[in-house]
Amino acid sequence: MSEQLPWQWPESTWRPIVEKVRAGRSLKPKHWPGGAKCAVALSFDSDHETTTLRWGDTSPGTLSANQYGARVAIPRILALLAGHDIKASFFVPAITAMIHPDEQRRIIAEGHEIGIHSWIHEMNASLPPEDERDIQMRAADKLEEICGLRPVGIRTPSWDFSPVTLAITREMDLLYDSSLMADDDPYELLEEGAATGIVELPVEWIRDDMPYFGFDFRRQSRPHTPPSSVLGIFKAEFDGAHADGGVFQLTMHPHIIGHRSRMAMLSQLIDHINATGDIWYATHADIARWCLENAE
Amino acid sequence: MSEQLPWQWPESTWRPIVEKVRAGRSLKPKHWPGGAKCAVALSFDSDHETTTLRWGDTSPGTLSANQYGARVAIPRILALLAGHDIKASFFVPAITAMIHPDEQRRIIAEGHEIGIHSWIHEMNASLPPEDERDIQMRAADKLEEICGLRPVGIRTPSWDFSPVTLAITREMDLLYDSSLMADDDPYELLEEGAATGIVELPVEWIRDDMPYFGFDFRRQSRPHTPPSSVLGIFKAEFDGAHADGGVFQLTMHPHIIGHRSRMAMLSQLIDHINATGDIWYATHADIARWCLENAE
Amino acid sequence: MSEQLPWQWPESTWRPIVEKVRAGRSLKPKHWPGGAKCAVALSFDSDHETTTLRWGDTSPGTLSANQYGARVAIPRILALLAGHDIKASFFVPAITAMIHPDEQRRIIAEGHEIGIHSWIHEMNASLPPEDERDIQMRAADKLEEICGLRPVGIRTPSWDFSPVTLAITREMDLLYDSSLMADDDPYELLEEGAATGIVELPVEWIRDDMPYFGFDFRRQSRPHTPPSSVLGIFKAEFDGAHADGGVFQLTMHPHIIGHRSRMAMLSQLIDHINATGDIWYATHADIARWCLENAE
Amino acid sequence: MSEQLPWQWPESTWRPIVEKVRAGRSLKPKHWPGGAKCAVALSFDSDHETTTLRWGDTSPGTLSANQYGARVAIPRILALLAGHDIKASFFVPAITAMIHPDEQRRIIAEGHEIGIHSWIHEMNASLPPEDERDIQMRAADKLEEICGLRPVGIRTPSWDFSPVTLAITREMDLLYDSSLMADDDPYELLEEGAATGIVELPVEWIRDDMPYFGFDFRRQSRPHTPPSSVLGIFKAEFDGAHADGGVFQLTMHPHIIGHRSRMAMLSQLIDHINATGDIWYATHADIARWCLENAE
Repeated sequence: MSEQLPWQWPESTWRPIVEKVRAGRSLKPKHWPGGAKCAVALSFDSDHETTTLRWGDTSPGTLSANQYGARVAIPRILALLAGHDIKASFFVPAITAMIHPDEQRRIIAEGHEIGIHSWIHEMNASLPPEDERDIQMRAADKLEEICGLRPVGIRTPSWDFSPVTLAITREMDLLYDSSLMADDDPYELLEEGAATGIVELPVEWIRDDMPYFGFDFRRQSRPHTPPSSVLGIFKAEFDGAHADGGVFQLTMHPHIIGHRSRMAMLSQLIDHINATGDIWYATHADIARWCLENAE
Repeated sequence: MSEQLPWQWPESTWRPIVEKVRAGRSLKPKHWPGGAKCAVALSFDSDHETTTLRWGDTSPGTLSANQYGARVAIPRILALLAGHDIKASFFVPAITAMIHPDEQRRIIAEGHEIGIHSWIHEMNASLPPEDERDIQMRAADKLEEICGLRPVGIRTPSWDFSPVTLAITREMDLLYDSSLMADDDPYELLEEGAATGIVELPVEWIRDDMPYFGFDFRRQSRPHTPPSSVLGIFKAEFDGAHADGGVFQLTMHPHIIGHRSRMAMLSQLIDHINATGDIWYATHADIARWCLENAE
Repeated sequence: MSEQLPWQWPESTWRPIVEKVRAGRSLKPKHWPGGAKCAVALSFDSDHETTTLRWGDTSPGTLSANQYGARVAIPRILALLAGHDIKASFFVPAITAMIHPDEQRRIIAEGHEIGIHSWIHEMNASLPPEDERDIQMRAADKLEEICGLRPVGIRTPSWDFSPVTLAITREMDLLYDSSLMADDDPYELLEEGAATGIVELPVEWIRDDMPYFGFDFRRQSRPHTPPSSVLGIFKAEFDGAHADGGVFQLTMHPHIIGHRSRMAMLSQLIDHINATGDIWYATHADIARWCLENAE
Repeated sequence: MSEQLPWQWPESTWRPIVEKVRAGRSLKPKHWPGGAKCAVALSFDSDHETTTLRWGDTSPGTLSANQYGARVAIPRILALLAGHDIKASFFVPAITAMIHPDEQRRIIAEGHEIGIHSWIHEMNASLPPEDERDIQMRAADKLEEICGLRPVGIRTPSWDFSPVTLAITREMDLLYDSSLMADDDPYELLEEGAATGIVELPVEWIRDDMPYFGFDFRRQSRPHTPPSSVLGIFKAEFDGAHADGGVFQLTMHPHIIGHRSRMAMLSQLIDHINATGDIWYATHADIARWCLENAE
């Protein structure tokens, strides 16, 4: 990088930064399976204890709040999904899978997807490139070893994407990434202007439970937003997706969403979606595959 | 601790951290006293002046807002509880008890519980282990000296739990701890995988008045959440507890909850709970004892 | 101060800190003038340009937002008060009065009170004691010189009260202070345990427009709370005061409250107060005097 | 600047700071075109990728969220405006125009205005004066080169106005600035007390989407406010402008407002405005020109 300040940068500095990873052609399909009007992609990032361990923190207090994710939240979530016959995607750090291997096997056994989500929730952009590559590959191996299925998709922790993340994902021949935000609906990723064949199933902080409900005592930087307000936002995002015939993608975290007051909200959201009707609930992998094969 | 970064840690580093203090068997009872459907555990952390003194701060301004807790809030709270014949638990730093000894005696005289809550609201994890042990024991002695009753439970300040807190609590032969978050309902604490016989009556920031109403001028980091929104969250947590036949545990602070606009909210919450019906209001100690004796 | 950490302090260290400035006997009166059920004390801290200058900041942008307070907000506020025949108190830094002398004269001419509010919104606790004394006295002189009336009350900027503030206020023989928070209703201030004869007309961040509406771009630490939510909080505080037969005291800032969306809220609050009825609207000075003469 | 602390400043220090840039005579017109009761000035700051690049940040993740502004948001916004036949103003950094030149040409072709908005969203107050002058002039040239029209107005990034910004704007003979906040309605800018002939079309954080919806993961300092709450605030600001016969000015950012849940809110706001009736929707340039020619 130049030592100039950004307002002094020549075009030869800023343009390659912008072009490194970019949204290519839309993969929004001409139609959805079974004549559905809208696809709904629910996902759960099962970070559990890794959100404490990643900082080198050893506090029994925060680890107990993480254990809640495995002990209380995952069973509640799986029961809710089963009750509505919804298939969803779980993105799981390798360490989470090693602490809770039976949880992952149950998730697979109930028909859901498990995708790559780092080793210990480390930030990609903070890693040396060779270590990022090694970790991403070992994490996939560990999930396959525990679950018996090789993951086909990746979500980077905190959606932190390094300049080499896409190259590693291409080398691993994954079907899709779900970490970027250039559209509401799926698109093909470009690397330095060239089509990669990788599907991006985009995320958004708007459709994430963490900015509303996350709480870090030491920073005290965010209040809990009332679930009723969050429900209103999620409904409006879904309503827009339905009107557009696109995808409603939602990211949640078991230790955040799994509480009584919040599961009631998630249940109301699913009731709203079902009352709207003509929905295809599917895993991220199934949606990515469909989009790749049925893009307009 | 290893000098490696967390993503480089071998399993021999992270697994003992995770296993240090852990949730064991559920102590959710088969039934509640008198055929109640749900237990309600209201608690008040009477921090008062210690929230200023603990920082070495001497500001007459923040101390006046703390004095409000003793002068205005505690009488209002006791009147509200008496009006509904509710027994609750008060967790009291030793310094608070020394500044306001008659307050503690009145609380005991009206049938409520007083539990350990540090010396001056110091953070456990910041103390040398021998000092943490000395302070926890002296705090219990001081409460007994002032109240005439020996406390049987502990809540750590800001729910900050050090690696030795549980060992001290075992050595003191306490009945319960109320500082951890691995479940909604009571459970037995494990230390390094071994059952301890100590009941955990779990807490949650969701069911605490501070994240919604706390305000620190110097940080200006949090707005006041409208009491009507907080009421909605607390009601939803209670409704879930009632549906599960579990415990609805709530943590409040006199100098925070005791204001006119907030006491009105607490009163409305109690009205909602009573309208639902089949409730056992009890102190943390009575609930812990019942759970230990009646676990499924 | 001792070099010990607060949890190591002996009682001889912490008790004098606690006792320095303290709430004494309640001055809540037996009855209000004219048989009113409740006193309403509206106040406006006319900080205007001093909120920028106090930091040594020279930004034309933030200064323009301050000028709004004098150019747009004060005329709107005075019109609203006149329309309801309400007398209120304005706390004015000396520099504000020097930039906007006619504004202060108009406020006095319309029957409102002007009180001391620092020189340039400096924080008392950051000043050497002799400078705090000099500034507080010079500020009173400057207000008297511009307004033709000597102020009888003081509000410290940001309610920051130093260990010598009360001594200066006693030396100046002021009637009241309005910076502390130990009660909802007026009380007499104690200094080191001794009654001072000074009335405290207490304030609260709950009843202040800044924590809800203040915005500092550089910190981006607080969102705007919807005026409808703030209205709910202020109403609940007033309703409690009315039920108690006490004082409803409110602190606002012209450059914050004076915007169209917020003046609409203030107007609705006054409508709610008037619909409740039996109100004595008065300046802080008149309420302090009444309380001193009619305390139970 | 003096080395004295602000509370020690003599009047000769603070008064020139206050007088540097100041609001002069009101330019609120006697009447609006076509007998309209109120002018509505919608604006969009098309920052796109510059909000990442300005920090020297190269993250593909945040750049993807910026690309959303160009790929998804601008087409949605233009469709909404066209559907209601509303003309609006877009303030565009030069780098945005270089990355997305066709977007700017389409905006002009559809009858909207494009104004100056920095080179790469650099903060004016951080620049050496000669560089600020050079950048502001080059940015205008670049917009003219790409759009074929010379801009007549300026909005500084983050409304950060340096002590020399107004002098540069005068030298460039611009019609108006839209970065300051001393009034709700247009006014003439004074420089050191002298009328400049430059129209200020004032902005406000209250009427900006960023404080409610902006989110910075690394700081996690702000939650998303529910669109329904923001709608209430914007409606109240508009209602006040309509009652006053003034201007309702609103600032939005494509990558922030363009999401499904927020465009629904903007659409509802326009419906509310239209239901009120007697509106003149116009570009900032057309409003500034009208005000200059029709001031009372």
